[in-house]
Amino acid sequence: MVADMAAGRVIGVDLGGTKLLAGTVDSTLNVHHRAHRFARGSGTADVLDTIVDAVREARDAADGEVDAVGFGIPSLIDQERGMAVTTVHLPIRDVPFRDLMAERLGLPVFVDNDATVAMLAEWRFGAARDCSDALLITVGTGIGGGMVAGGALVRGAQGAAAEFGHMTIDYDGPLCPCGAHGCLEAFVSGTALAREARALGLELTGAQVAELAHDGHVGARALVSEMGTRLGTGIANLVNAFNPQVVVVGGGVLALGDLLLEPAREEVARRALAPSRDLVRIVPTRFGAESGMLGAAVLALEGVAA
Amino acid sequence: MVADMAAGRVIGVDLGGTKLLAGTVDSTLNVHHRAHRFARGSGTADVLDTIVDAVREARDAADGEVDAVGFGIPSLIDQERGMAVTTVHLPIRDVPFRDLMAERLGLPVFVDNDATVAMLAEWRFGAARDCSDALLITVGTGIGGGMVAGGALVRGAQGAAAEFGHMTIDYDGPLCPCGAHGCLEAFVSGTALAREARALGLELTGAQVAELAHDGHVGARALVSEMGTRLGTGIANLVNAFNPQVVVVGGGVLALGDLLLEPAREEVARRALAPSRDLVRIVPTRFGAESGMLGAAVLALEGVAA
Repeated sequence: MVADMAAGRVIGVDLGGTKLLAGTVDSTLNVHHRAHRFARGSGTADVLDTIVDAVREARDAADGEVDAVGFGIPSLIDQERGMAVTTVHLPIRDVPFRDLMAERLGLPVFVDNDATVAMLAEWRFGAARDCSDALLITVGTGIGGGMVAGGALVRGAQGAAAEFGHMTIDYDGPLCPCGAHGCLEAFVSGTALAREARALGLELTGAQVAELAHDGHVGARALVSEMGTRLGTGIANLVNAFNPQVVVVGGGVLALGDLLLEPAREEVARRALAPSRDLVRIVPTRFGAESGMLGAAVLALEGVAA
Repeated sequence: MVADMAAGRVIGVDLGGTKLLAGTVDSTLNVHHRAHRFARGSGTADVLDTIVDAVREARDAADGEVDAVGFGIPSLIDQERGMAVTTVHLPIRDVPFRDLMAERLGLPVFVDNDATVAMLAEWRFGAARDCSDALLITVGTGIGGGMVAGGALVRGAQGAAAEFGHMTIDYDGPLCPCGAHGCLEAFVSGTALAREARALGLELTGAQVAELAHDGHVGARALVSEMGTRLGTGIANLVNAFNPQVVVVGGGVLALGDLLLEPAREEVARRALAPSRDLVRIVPTRFGAESGMLGAAVLALEGVAA
């Protein structure tokens, strides 16, 4: 199932809205150097300079030549033009990102959506290895997704597939920032956890609720369990639609571990149909916070080998 | 996008729970003969005899040789063994259906799920022609589905994908016969339409409500419109997950036409995200009640050409 890959090294870049991680990675996915950037300036030129600087640091640290650079970007990607079509958090819209980076770095550059490349890393080397059909759901501030069906990454007609966060699970439910009601993301996110805590008179962030739940706080555990159940409702919908071997869950909520995943699994057992519900495994990512960077590296490795 | 097909003729068989349609079909999807069977007996032997008899009628009526036979079956199909794994309406479970039919008919036989082959017909020749990403939703007594992603049919790891009817759109909603609450099928089906009518004191079948709606009955129109909106909620979820160019709607509810589809389109515009919502078209099947038979024929045409 693993595609041909170059023998050399590549740089994978996870381009987050507020931070950047560039890693020098070999074809067995060992990471030889990590370059972090937290501040990135505000304008397009500053952001591009920050990226180039981090990639150069990773390249200088590489033991030998680097063959290509891959980028995972939190945005809809126009693959033909190699650019971000909509970016909420980064001022790189309408910039010919791939060609610009290739020119400034003097290396082949490959670009894709951050959740798509995270799915790629988990599929080739991680929790979805050897699967023909798999899903990734990342839950942090919001929800991201990636998808493999019939042994191929699924991107949709415009690269906009796998928007699992805006799946309606309660059509009269709470308002989602997207303007619709009862989206999965309105129930399952750090923001939703904080909102539910506030309804109980607790002024806490999602992370603080998670910490209390770990410490055994009964109210916090109930909130996390309820969130896990709703995550399971969404996963059950996807299991019925896709019949995957595995659903990989990632993002900040992973800190909750089985406090979140066990109620999700129970809900999937209640709502998904046989035989899909009996086959599917619901598991954490193997690569955690590095799924995006490693996936960008896999994108580059497979890109130069193609 | 159309795969290689044999120049000759094939027989496509849509094997419904209560009726059977076998058609003699050429490679441009012209139908030269139709054999219908309504009664089919109750035991396995009777059912198999009825099928063989209908196929022989279609073959005898063919103008020249027949190259293969394709079957669309309302069941989960084990492709390796060519048999139905779970069939609710037909006593052919645990029968090596493909091999048995090939032996009795003396022809190559191909077998797949009925909604999957209906998707195949619409994709190759119908409402989803030239699309890389498309969905089919058929709404009758229940809901069936088919799916094309990245230019390939999606069947899932066990052939159980596209169970769109049991997508939760209201987790505290009405009980579905599957045992879960708030499935799409609990809102969108002939059964659901009759139930909603009954809640208004009207003892009518779904078909009767549809007829009243066509005649301009205000209450019936409201029920149909509400059902269209809920169908749209389900379609919006799928549009966000798949980013298809087209969603093809088929089944008995098609008699409602735009009385159903227009509210569905409006709901998709409200709930699906850009750019997916702006791309997707929501349209009726081209082949209507013959999608299954024609899809079974396409399966056979592509099977012998492979």
